[in-house]
Amino acid sequence: MVQIPKQSAPTSPAQRPVPTSADVARLAGVSRATVSYVLNNTSAVRISEPTRRRVHEAAKELGYVPHAAARSLRAGHSRMVLMPAPSVPVGPLYSQFFNELQWALSRLDYTVVQYGSVGLHGDEAASVWAELRPVAVLVPGSGLGPQGVAVLKRSGARAVVTLGPERVEGAHALLMDHDRVGHCAGAHLVARGRRRIGVVVPEETGLEIFSKPRLEGVRRALHGTDASATVLPLAYEEEAAARLAARWRSLDLDAVFAYNDEYAMLLMRALLDEGIGIPDDTAVIGADDLMLGRLLRPRLSTVHIELPSGRDLAELVDRAVREPGAAPETHEVLGARVVHRDSS
Amino acid sequence: MVQIPKQSAPTSPAQRPVPTSADVARLAGVSRATVSYVLNNTSAVRISEPTRRRVHEAAKELGYVPHAAARSLRAGHSRMVLMPAPSVPVGPLYSQFFNELQWALSRLDYTVVQYGSVGLHGDEAASVWAELRPVAVLVPGSGLGPQGVAVLKRSGARAVVTLGPERVEGAHALLMDHDRVGHCAGAHLVARGRRRIGVVVPEETGLEIFSKPRLEGVRRALHGTDASATVLPLAYEEEAAARLAARWRSLDLDAVFAYNDEYAMLLMRALLDEGIGIPDDTAVIGADDLMLGRLLRPRLSTVHIELPSGRDLAELVDRAVREPGAAPETHEVLGARVVHRDSS
Repeated sequence: MVQIPKQSAPTSPAQRPVPTSADVARLAGVSRATVSYVLNNTSAVRISEPTRRRVHEAAKELGYVPHAAARSLRAGHSRMVLMPAPSVPVGPLYSQFFNELQWALSRLDYTVVQYGSVGLHGDEAASVWAELRPVAVLVPGSGLGPQGVAVLKRSGARAVVTLGPERVEGAHALLMDHDRVGHCAGAHLVARGRRRIGVVVPEETGLEIFSKPRLEGVRRALHGTDASATVLPLAYEEEAAARLAARWRSLDLDAVFAYNDEYAMLLMRALLDEGIGIPDDTAVIGADDLMLGRLLRPRLSTVHIELPSGRDLAELVDRAVREPGAAPETHEVLGARVVHRDSS
Repeated sequence: MVQIPKQSAPTSPAQRPVPTSADVARLAGVSRATVSYVLNNTSAVRISEPTRRRVHEAAKELGYVPHAAARSLRAGHSRMVLMPAPSVPVGPLYSQFFNELQWALSRLDYTVVQYGSVGLHGDEAASVWAELRPVAVLVPGSGLGPQGVAVLKRSGARAVVTLGPERVEGAHALLMDHDRVGHCAGAHLVARGRRRIGVVVPEETGLEIFSKPRLEGVRRALHGTDASATVLPLAYEEEAAARLAARWRSLDLDAVFAYNDEYAMLLMRALLDEGIGIPDDTAVIGADDLMLGRLLRPRLSTVHIELPSGRDLAELVDRAVREPGAAPETHEVLGARVVHRDSS
């Protein structure tokens, strides 16, 4: 770890006071109300072009920036959409989705703020988010309960949208049911004639919200067939994969769904090193359709996942904010399909 | 893309008004000041345990949550540390660093807010950030200039810290010079006897802030030797890698530093498919030390990167907030070392 030394520096002159709209009004020779009308671009009040210009010039000269919090206190609500930051590493898929969402919301004049959720859980987190008085809250994952939704709404949030496996009372739900991902993988392996199917479940904490429904999806796909599922806990480490591969023959499996492509690549490498034929002895399939899976030999089969478009989600948020009394909407938004390559 | 239908839902009863501290005071039978003292845990004022309990019970019954913005307006500044969210996908390394930073700052009673920076650049972004009146701003990457720093400071930010390749006037600088990464890779290849060295530069936009200094670092390592560097633009796509590999022999290179492990894996696969021997014909080295690089055969050589600890950075922020007049500190915080495996 690189160290930052604790340096104690000489002090330089103190900071100037923060300029206020009253300072702008004084310099421009207008009222504070006029400053507010001009800088908030209010169309309700007619203000002459020279006055507008004078206000803008004074604001620029003083370096005046409006205070979002003061503005939201006046307006009674903010334009802030709060989205807890994911606490697990996110892949390029999520990253693209989130960028698109930001773009779309900023075009609708919302400000997207991501809030660290480290160390906070469920309804406790909701109270902390509520302090920022967001106009809407998007909550990925699970953990928020009806109480948390109520806290947010009582604090002025007009819309609470969950992105997760299940509906929460009072909130709009974008159902992202990872059950489907496992179901796709399981159905594919059964259709390929496999019957003794291992399911890798990461040992890392925080991933259960994806891994549990994926496992359930495999079980659902196997239901009514003569195929069986064996749960295989696995840490994302080479040594752990090597240990699992070393006892692979005793497990007597003919296929494995490995949670996602990263775990699949890790396990496939270890199985190949152990002399297990892929797909002949064991078929392997991952999920997420990472580019790197195509670089392996054999090429990795995977489940491709589709997220909703950021623009659609932004429109849902805007609709919900404008109609806070409307009944919560529920949409299934996770698409999944098998990409069959050489490993299965 | 999964579509969200535009549903128009029946309306349900309107929302209740947001409870205020005045409501809590009324229900608890105390003054607003007492409510404020109790809920902000002020130690300066003695308040009896029964009164404290009454205030907490009233707040709970009403579902009252303090308004962070109102509190910061009263206090004249907030405890909000604002950090623009990266607009490019971040790997597990950055993700871990950021989680650690959040933890450390929250222990020092700061609130970390990540702000979407999509579509905003440099000093223009600074004005938007300033509206939130953060007490400190951490700016990754480059783009913020001295003007932007001044705007943030005039709006009450006591500390601006940049994490990037160079110092910006008025801001504390954590220098993360990716030049070092390229220098490590270049020096390693020269030491291994290679002389005609390709340097992959991603064609994807947004990565220049890393790829340009990495390229410069290679050039610096080659300076004074008889080795030469050839720039190889590459898009992160299998077809682009195959095209580059197809003309590899005509390029007459005996080594390549491929920007990072992902590009290295992509290119190495294409070179192997083209029958190029690795490392005999061409040595390959990446950067970032991803686990997946160890899964390939030959195992990928890489440059391991060390970021500063989140705790150290949190302490720097806290020190800077407490001494806003102190001269800006500058620290070199990026560590880099070669991990030599089989591909080079």
